[in-house]
Amino acid sequence: MNQISIQGQFGSFHHIASKYYFKKNTAWTCRDTFKEVFKDVDSGKVDYGFVAIENSLFGSINEVYDLLLKYKLWIAGEVYLRIQHCLVSLPNTALNNIEEVHSHPVALAQCEEFLDQYLPQAERFEHHDTAGAAADILKWNNPAKAAIASAEAAQLHGLKMLKSEIETNKQNYTRFIVLQNTKNKMKTKNLKQLSKTSIVLELAERPGILYEALGAFANRKINLNKVESRPIIGKAWHYMFYLDFEAAANSANGRAALKELSNNGNKVTVLGSYPKGQLFT
Amino acid sequence: MNQISIQGQFGSFHHIASKYYFKKNTAWTCRDTFKEVFKDVDSGKVDYGFVAIENSLFGSINEVYDLLLKYKLWIAGEVYLRIQHCLVSLPNTALNNIEEVHSHPVALAQCEEFLDQYLPQAERFEHHDTAGAAADILKWNNPAKAAIASAEAAQLHGLKMLKSEIETNKQNYTRFIVLQNTKNKMKTKNLKQLSKTSIVLELAERPGILYEALGAFANRKINLNKVESRPIIGKAWHYMFYLDFEAAANSANGRAALKELSNNGNKVTVLGSYPKGQLFT
Repeated sequence: MNQISIQGQFGSFHHIASKYYFKKNTAWTCRDTFKEVFKDVDSGKVDYGFVAIENSLFGSINEVYDLLLKYKLWIAGEVYLRIQHCLVSLPNTALNNIEEVHSHPVALAQCEEFLDQYLPQAERFEHHDTAGAAADILKWNNPAKAAIASAEAAQLHGLKMLKSEIETNKQNYTRFIVLQNTKNKMKTKNLKQLSKTSIVLELAERPGILYEALGAFANRKINLNKVESRPIIGKAWHYMFYLDFEAAANSANGRAALKELSNNGNKVTVLGSYPKGQLFT
Repeated sequence: MNQISIQGQFGSFHHIASKYYFKKNTAWTCRDTFKEVFKDVDSGKVDYGFVAIENSLFGSINEVYDLLLKYKLWIAGEVYLRIQHCLVSLPNTALNNIEEVHSHPVALAQCEEFLDQYLPQAERFEHHDTAGAAADILKWNNPAKAAIASAEAAQLHGLKMLKSEIETNKQNYTRFIVLQNTKNKMKTKNLKQLSKTSIVLELAERPGILYEALGAFANRKINLNKVESRPIIGKAWHYMFYLDFEAAANSANGRAALKELSNNGNKVTVLGSYPKGQLFT
């Protein structure tokens, strides 16, 4: 039985994506914040943490990038999920009854065009997660309130799906990562066959250093999937770079690139090597 | 008289920084959101917009990066401000009376250690801006409520400064940018002597393209101040890069670098050239 900790309640996109990833024999701990998920994995309370790290429209979730560096957990996997938002309500609610719409702030933003057009009168309220907002609709038992959540959350709480696919842009995908305590990271088998690695790079201080560092990958034809900068706390206007590249950290190419970076005076932290994730729609 | 639009109320860090930048003869329009500031400049309602783009601890403000691309305004200047947070209240409030602390979510996060240690009993509430929270303390006239805001906001509203410099990390600086309508951008004089340029780069699709693109700067010894990635909406897992570099867009070096980028099939949008900003503490 895998013990896993996720941000969000049953029916949340975290829950849906983690069911695709872990398939079966899983016991969930539902948390309000990313920090609690990291703490659960760090303390050994659960085997795995499962958190969103990036959405194709919203961009990177900076809090998760910062927590990755703070907690030094191991990224053991990733998975991609198509995000489809629905307007859900009590069974006796009609569109023109709705005075309040509740959801996660990102979900509210992603459905702004629908809300502006069909529910201009409704006030918008922010919640920790979409599924939690759906659960509240049931609890409040007030037909003037609706939530934006997954179809699964509507079903779970016996709510009506007033309208589906209300997101403005359909190219809406979220990337989730699977976290392990570093003490367990060596359990991961066949590291050389894993196809992706995530690192944090604190660059040496000299002109053109980012260009030089990216050369360690380009010159070995290692594909970079992502470059994300974050401030270094206490060193104003200096940045760390989070990179994802397509090679295992202990493959010949990966090892050589990482060694070149260290030899050139950069500080390299490997966050994990893992198989490239599958997309579920 | 300069007509300028800022995010936040009088006494906010936007207001303080804009007073340093514009010095005198300024009329302010105070807005709740960044989007309203961009709209004010775009429509010609004001001469300048003034918005925070990055904090040395929080990182980049993604919403502002996205609005820069959407509104195509011109960045005409920048300024840096040291951020110092204070706990402010009605004159008759003592620390152990406080049941609620109100402020901008970033200010609340930056004072978390102080709040955890001295006000563990107080509930935290999020506001649009720090100075607006201070104004509410006066309006509510309830000694159980306090705000986190600037010393200037406390003074402006006749509030008591219960404690100053309550931020966890003192290396707390915000970078603000000055926005003009592009129709007015040619008023900027001596463009060749301006020392900084901001661009957005939508890269051609081939392996190693980011490395190749940064070479346009590295090979001319042009210093890069900032690299920020943002998703391209509708093209999942493809990114735009916002770059700040130390050269005017129409200097010999700047022109050559930008031309190389375009010639190599990348889409380049210049957001502005401007003098490197001053730091006020």
